[in-house]
Amino acid sequence: MISFPPAMERLIHELSKLPTIGQKSATRLAYFLVTSKPELAQQIATSLNETVAEIKQCQTCFFLSQSNPESEQVQCSICSDTKRDSTLLCVVEKPMDVIAVERVAEFRGVYHVLHGLWSPLRGNGPDKLRIKELEARLKQGGITEVILATGCTLEGDATALYLSNLISQYKIKSTRLAQGIPKGGELEYADDITLSRAFSGRSTLS
Amino acid sequence: MISFPPAMERLIHELSKLPTIGQKSATRLAYFLVTSKPELAQQIATSLNETVAEIKQCQTCFFLSQSNPESEQVQCSICSDTKRDSTLLCVVEKPMDVIAVERVAEFRGVYHVLHGLWSPLRGNGPDKLRIKELEARLKQGGITEVILATGCTLEGDATALYLSNLISQYKIKSTRLAQGIPKGGELEYADDITLSRAFSGRSTLS
Repeated sequence: MISFPPAMERLIHELSKLPTIGQKSATRLAYFLVTSKPELAQQIATSLNETVAEIKQCQTCFFLSQSNPESEQVQCSICSDTKRDSTLLCVVEKPMDVIAVERVAEFRGVYHVLHGLWSPLRGNGPDKLRIKELEARLKQGGITEVILATGCTLEGDATALYLSNLISQYKIKSTRLAQGIPKGGELEYADDITLSRAFSGRSTLS
Repeated sequence: MISFPPAMERLIHELSKLPTIGQKSATRLAYFLVTSKPELAQQIATSLNETVAEIKQCQTCFFLSQSNPESEQVQCSICSDTKRDSTLLCVVEKPMDVIAVERVAEFRGVYHVLHGLWSPLRGNGPDKLRIKELEARLKQGGITEVILATGCTLEGDATALYLSNLISQYKIKSTRLAQGIPKGGELEYADDITLSRAFSGRSTLS
């Protein structure tokens, strides 16, 4: 049985371990890189090695940060910015959510990245998330409000509920992002839960 | 504006140059590699470098081959197999098609990989394909039949027609793969062209 040469088979096998990339996509990507864009393949190889070596999680909020080789301490640009309001803490699932919130430029507090959600079905218990570290920050004091900004999915809601119980033990206010009809959304096509939450969260027009 | 650290941004930018991978997928892949599977990231980096350095196109058929560092000549395992029938030549678009034909284990001839199809809309003229090299093989003599096994798409058909004209100049027989209803296909759902070709290519049941 003829197959691709060993080095090519190995690359395909490794690429197919990536999420959303199956055997066929991996073969197409490997073929593209090797025959059309060898220089891109080399750039990606260098970047992968650099990123793995240099990108660490911030010791305070667990957002991604490029480590300074001279220092043991890893602190992200948000945590080291003294102009940010450290009494206001926004809890998110993943680093991409920090970028999304920052894009809106409305929030001037600091973050805490959980790196996952509470999901019993996937075997992600609270111990796999950065919750102990969140508790340590709450114990330190100084935080007046925690905004639970996990997604409005089953797992996002469950995690927010779990955290809200935990936070109440420290007598700190916890809030959840508003849920309702998205901009551009039509009532006709909104699902029942969204519509119900839009009603219960209605506000007066000033 | 907060963004990811430079090394991470660079990796995302490079991954997003891959076909079918956009900015969002690239970000998810980079996050997955850096935080969940740093060892996979390093394996992929090594494989990319190895593949680019070692995988070459066979000098005869342009299938992929791992080069022997001691030899200047690059010859794939099919072309160097003396048991194969070198009078029968199968022309395909890409290396993946060779693997597909070999899987069926019915064809014992040799191949010629074009590395593309004739596609004026994408600016892929016949000069960008391995057609000159195909002509050189035809001129050498010894080939009695060329099987045009490009896909049954507009571009695959156009390329096959172009090649069939070219091959006829060398007084060599050229054939095209049969077109018709695929195994498991229902007549009701077959498109008009497929059905028409299935009729014109009908055979007697012995």
